[in-house]
Amino acid sequence: MKPRIYINDVAVRDGFQIEKNVIATETKVALIDMLSQTGLAKVEVTSFVHPKLVPNMADAAEVLAHIQRVPGVAYTVLVPNLKGMERAVEAHRARGTIDEINVVMSVSETHNRANINRTCEESFADFAVMIGIAKAAGIRMNGTLSTTFGCPFEGHVAEQRVMAFAERYAALGFDGVTLADTTGMGNPAQVKRIAAEAVRRLPGIEFTLHFHNTRGMGLANVVAGIEAGIVRYDGSLGGLGGCPFAPGATGNICTEDMVNMLEDMGYDTGVELDKLLAAAVKLPAIVGHEVPGQVMRAGRTLHLHPVPEKLYTQ
Amino acid sequence: MKPRIYINDVAVRDGFQIEKNVIATETKVALIDMLSQTGLAKVEVTSFVHPKLVPNMADAAEVLAHIQRVPGVAYTVLVPNLKGMERAVEAHRARGTIDEINVVMSVSETHNRANINRTCEESFADFAVMIGIAKAAGIRMNGTLSTTFGCPFEGHVAEQRVMAFAERYAALGFDGVTLADTTGMGNPAQVKRIAAEAVRRLPGIEFTLHFHNTRGMGLANVVAGIEAGIVRYDGSLGGLGGCPFAPGATGNICTEDMVNMLEDMGYDTGVELDKLLAAAVKLPAIVGHEVPGQVMRAGRTLHLHPVPEKLYTQ
Repeated sequence: MKPRIYINDVAVRDGFQIEKNVIATETKVALIDMLSQTGLAKVEVTSFVHPKLVPNMADAAEVLAHIQRVPGVAYTVLVPNLKGMERAVEAHRARGTIDEINVVMSVSETHNRANINRTCEESFADFAVMIGIAKAAGIRMNGTLSTTFGCPFEGHVAEQRVMAFAERYAALGFDGVTLADTTGMGNPAQVKRIAAEAVRRLPGIEFTLHFHNTRGMGLANVVAGIEAGIVRYDGSLGGLGGCPFAPGATGNICTEDMVNMLEDMGYDTGVELDKLLAAAVKLPAIVGHEVPGQVMRAGRTLHLHPVPEKLYTQ
Repeated sequence: MKPRIYINDVAVRDGFQIEKNVIATETKVALIDMLSQTGLAKVEVTSFVHPKLVPNMADAAEVLAHIQRVPGVAYTVLVPNLKGMERAVEAHRARGTIDEINVVMSVSETHNRANINRTCEESFADFAVMIGIAKAAGIRMNGTLSTTFGCPFEGHVAEQRVMAFAERYAALGFDGVTLADTTGMGNPAQVKRIAAEAVRRLPGIEFTLHFHNTRGMGLANVVAGIEAGIVRYDGSLGGLGGCPFAPGATGNICTEDMVNMLEDMGYDTGVELDKLLAAAVKLPAIVGHEVPGQVMRAGRTLHLHPVPEKLYTQ
């Protein structure tokens, strides 16, 4: 039996956060509402990052207050630090339920310092405080481990360190852990090995895999992850998102391309691909540029073409 | 033990044939000569198609006459019909050795009629004549089965028909058979199943897999094919090539992206990736547009970045 696969779309957070154009709150809300109707298991809707750092996430509380929640869809938000935690819990209590908070650190010490301005130990110390606040507010906690499959400064990270960090998240009481390939350095052999070991060590944790397609390996890594027993995957509508280390390079794997592949392979994702594509085709107008999604150009696999009228006969 | 993987680059034929700009013979020769130095197992250098149909292949004999052959590299050409066969053998005898001739038909009857103006039976009848000519000239024969993993008109093709056609190639005396995913409809589960069955039925045939990345599944399909026991793969430098059914969609899988992945996974391809990348970056100037290759943008996986000078410390 093929396992059910659960898809989390991160475009509105991970994709929009790097867009230069200001995206209107109502545009985000409308897109999230479309995504909520597709059958996705989870939608990452915003980030409580400092508005000066990421202007496109300044409306986090507003977005949460106006989306139409659909039963069965989990709404998750990124929270970078304790200040963001306060804002998130305030938004949660005031007007918009948050089902899950996602926090992020890098397995690579260098990348964590460069990206988050924290040592890894300081990140864990923050998380210990943050999880108490989240649990008191009745919100699930997911911890992301960036650079799990490679660091742009350090190269491949010791797999023992990945496991030790996943175990620390679990020990703190986190519900889920996302193993993230931040800059598209993971390969299928490595993904299969790391994912299998993580599942073996922490059977009680809900693992998610987050891949980037920076070097074309994104969907190959999804197949490897499923073979290793992980059933939760992040994707970004239209392949929105980028890679800060390679301007012009592809970023996050594309949700609808992943769903098209999984459907072709016989997996049930619960997602209605046509509805997802209907949302994806709106993105170029929203962000003001083309996006990397391929199925939106080529059509879903079994979208057949008319037979030519003047077909050769013997 | 991981098997050695053999890579065939088809950019100069499969890629250039659809380019609108005329590409000078010396440009093709120079590119093939660069490719010959990379460690590729095979290079598909041209096609003996009618010059009026594909103007960029009109110089087939000239290209063959001027390339620098490197021992260990097989030089293959596409031959579409009996007329092309005559021209190829003439070129082979006159000035340029051809190691292998590649002929093509579709498993889908509709696609074969639409694309080749032949019934499938007529294609096999031609091949029976062509292989006699090739063998008399001492040239190996490879037969391609287009639409093995899906037909844009018929959808998925009966796998029994794929096997029956591969067996007919074998019965005719062909040395190799290429199972081709002409419009990027194959998925990893299907590839694994078809490839394993083909290898099981015809252990004496050298199978090659030819994938397109039209819907993002190209490299995932390579991994599936290797797991099923096929060790020969077509790729196109820079991802050159297209999809006639989806203007703007990606075509052939990118050779250097495939080599980067296989190297990361621990496979020996014999290819020096840096030399391949040095050839790939020349393509946009040659064809006059960007190409889909991703590693040429992002850098090979372990191309690390300098640690930021002002790194956070506790």
